Amino acid sequence: MGTVVSVEEHWALENALLDYLFAVDAMDDIDGMVACFTEDAVVDLTGLELGTYEGSEAIAGFYGQVFETMSHHMHTLSNFRVLACDGKTARVYAYICGMGRSHAGVDIQVYVYYDLKMRMTDKGWKISHFYEAPKLPMLDSVGQVHNSD
Amino acid sequence: MGTVVSVEEHWALENALLDYLFAVDAMDDIDGMVACFTEDAVVDLTGLELGTYEGSEAIAGFYGQVFETMSHHMHTLSNFRVLACDGKTARVYAYICGMGRSHAGVDIQVYVYYDLKMRMTDKGWKISHFYEAPKLPMLDSVGQVHNSD
Amino acid sequence: MGTVVSVEEHWALENALLDYLFAVDAMDDIDGMVACFTEDAVVDLTGLELGTYEGSEAIAGFYGQVFETMSHHMHTLSNFRVLACDGKTARVYAYICGMGRSHAGVDIQVYVYYDLKMRMTDKGWKISHFYEAPKLPMLDSVGQVHNSD
Repeated sequence: MGTVVSVEEHWALENALLDYLFAVDAMDDIDGMVACFTEDAVVDLTGLELGTYEGSEAIAGFYGQVFETMSHHMHTLSNFRVLACDGKTARVYAYICGMGRSHAGVDIQVYVYYDLKMRMTDKGWKISHFYEAPKLPMLDSVGQVHNSD
Repeated sequence: MGTVVSVEEHWALENALLDYLFAVDAMDDIDGMVACFTEDAVVDLTGLELGTYEGSEAIAGFYGQVFETMSHHMHTLSNFRVLACDGKTARVYAYICGMGRSHAGVDIQVYVYYDLKMRMTDKGWKISHFYEAPKLPMLDSVGQVHNSD
Repeated sequence: MGTVVSVEEHWALENALLDYLFAVDAMDDIDGMVACFTEDAVVDLTGLELGTYEGSEAIAGFYGQVFETMSHHMHTLSNFRVLACDGKTARVYAYICGMGRSHAGVDIQVYVYYDLKMRMTDKGWKISHFYEAPKLPMLDSVGQVHNSD
């Protein structure tokens, strides 16, 4: 696993993912959130038993609702890998520990992997297809948050 | 968020932070600890409801006390970003999971961000201003450690 | 701590360790697992109060048993450092949070450091000596897993 890409390409792709994580954890900038994706991006959360969101408007709606529900967010990145990259498109893989607290006071902690397709645009690498799924069994608290609002 | 710097500059800055984390977790080398900072550095821990420490002597005193209190330390770094860098000074941001056990047997685990100013010296990048604050709510155990010695 | 190596060398070594972690977490490819090591590699797990495994056959046997015991694996890497590197051999250090669940339903989580010797081969960097030990005190659950099968 892992493709031979230059250190610069590896870093540019990892940095695009860090942009996404920073926006998710800032929880106050929907435009910045949406700017991490291509306009036609698909966010497929069926691996978490949630929905699929296609295009900027649907993606903005999803993250807007998340930001209203949560009071704290922290998503830590590790084990970032470039699975494929031809300079115009790429597929990357990473581990994320997603942590947070809802306004209702429920703490969540999920250990997932991200499997993302990225596309080079005139504003740099953007996420065109987002998929995540649990790498470790999920705790009941995740369901509690989604039932609590 | 995130500034365009070369991969080499990014790596040199991240490596300076790893030097700091290694010294904090080694818990046995105050000189190596102090060497991570400029002589006039400020360590501002008010975000953790602790004090502010200015200059090598005060910084040595603070870490000396921490090392006496704790039996184990592990600080994991993720999501490192260069917010600004002009080659002589830089501002960097990162997530840290700070974990440890005190000699009194209390385990602590804090999820924080670091917001650091660094300065290029004749011995490489050094921390000139250190600030950290919780990214997730802190557990009561942190107060227990500080009350236990 | 930390040796001056090029960003490319640093990244190649880190990538070799990521290959190992990916194989450990995939839990389905003993050949890919063994391919992360030199043929004469030594896996010294005495720091975890486990055994020492020398050579491809013994290493395959060990990981085969682990993969049979566990239903989930996730090993997150951080604080990767190159301690020494002469282009042909290297010593690297890293933090790993090793998490998993056994088929018997026991969850484990260990906070360890890896201290590895690596060797450049015609197939890239491979692990020639593997050592890990706890960085934080281990929970009882680790013993439970090893007694549960």
